[in-house]
Amino acid sequence: MGGLRADGKLGQRSGRMRRFVIIGQTASASGDFRLDDIAGTSGRIDVLLRCVRAALLVSHGVRRAVVVDLVLRGGPGEPRVLRIDGDTSKFLRPDERSLAVLVQKALKADAQGGRSGFVSVRPGVSVRTGGLDEALAEIGDTRLFVLDPDGEDVRTLKDIGGTDAIFVLGDHLGLDAETRVRLKALGASPLRLGPVAIHADDAIAVLTNELDRREAQAP
Amino acid sequence: MGGLRADGKLGQRSGRMRRFVIIGQTASASGDFRLDDIAGTSGRIDVLLRCVRAALLVSHGVRRAVVVDLVLRGGPGEPRVLRIDGDTSKFLRPDERSLAVLVQKALKADAQGGRSGFVSVRPGVSVRTGGLDEALAEIGDTRLFVLDPDGEDVRTLKDIGGTDAIFVLGDHLGLDAETRVRLKALGASPLRLGPVAIHADDAIAVLTNELDRREAQAP
Repeated sequence: MGGLRADGKLGQRSGRMRRFVIIGQTASASGDFRLDDIAGTSGRIDVLLRCVRAALLVSHGVRRAVVVDLVLRGGPGEPRVLRIDGDTSKFLRPDERSLAVLVQKALKADAQGGRSGFVSVRPGVSVRTGGLDEALAEIGDTRLFVLDPDGEDVRTLKDIGGTDAIFVLGDHLGLDAETRVRLKALGASPLRLGPVAIHADDAIAVLTNELDRREAQAP
Repeated sequence: MGGLRADGKLGQRSGRMRRFVIIGQTASASGDFRLDDIAGTSGRIDVLLRCVRAALLVSHGVRRAVVVDLVLRGGPGEPRVLRIDGDTSKFLRPDERSLAVLVQKALKADAQGGRSGFVSVRPGVSVRTGGLDEALAEIGDTRLFVLDPDGEDVRTLKDIGGTDAIFVLGDHLGLDAETRVRLKALGASPLRLGPVAIHADDAIAVLTNELDRREAQAP
């Protein structure tokens, strides 16, 4: 089993890994926001924090084979990517304020923004300058999906259990046209979760449930 | 369409209604907690706030036919029930702090704790003294479910789309034995969502997705 290496890259792992990449259209890349008004001062980084919880935390534990990338496109220093790796992260708590403290400290710890890749700022947490392309730099032949109400139903999709996969989601503003074009160029498959447009964290919960079910049934 | 009446009871409605009852084993019934440390000072009311979001909010809107009851069993004045009705509630925001402000104001607005039923404290929000039995006082012949890892898989369960249903969930501490006995006596059917023990808000998201799918397919 691997985990985030000192250079911030994803280490070698055994077994499958899930990655969630959430695009924060206005989310603060600098960490300059107030903890007593996260939703009002951070470019809605609260939306992304809830995604971190949904992706990484289960009852009394952390999902080890899950990595979350927050693409922060708001404010000074944007774009930056903040990566949290369930395999090596510690002290993750579910409430928004605790997660905001973690994210803010991580963004401040590498305020210069390393130009040459991810910088590990605490166990399981790393930051780099860059956006979607940098988050997906190590995609290799991993299957890439983008949530899309016109995509294929996740329940009928073949072969997403038991293998590595990357899922890209938008925040409360959704995905912009440019991002959609880029994802299409990268070969992303559109994926639909249900008949109602739901929050990104709920989408992660629903998607995760489907993946959990498939993995439980896998030989 | 009905909604919460002035006496706090659930009004007459057309169509089906979903109700979620979440048991907060230690959650503050008095509203005496600090907004800058909700998770640390409220008996983990943050867990319940996340459930409110998952049950009631969708992308850019509120689910109208959903009611959430928070059963608050912690601190002075316990037990109390705080009810939020999507049909009539206003200004619901998704972040924990905003929801905490709403819940705190509601609990303070009726600090005496009316003994004779729900007291409406603001549009769509009401409070009463009492616990699970009081939350379920109007159950009538509505189907009652309790989340249980040994229950029937929600995906194979018949007839939960298109009808009224009440779902009871525990918080981070789960449901105590006494509550389980009481729910069994009330005829609650045990329901399983998947192979992994997930947070209550994720459970609501997964359950809601299943109900949304069934309603979309209903004639």
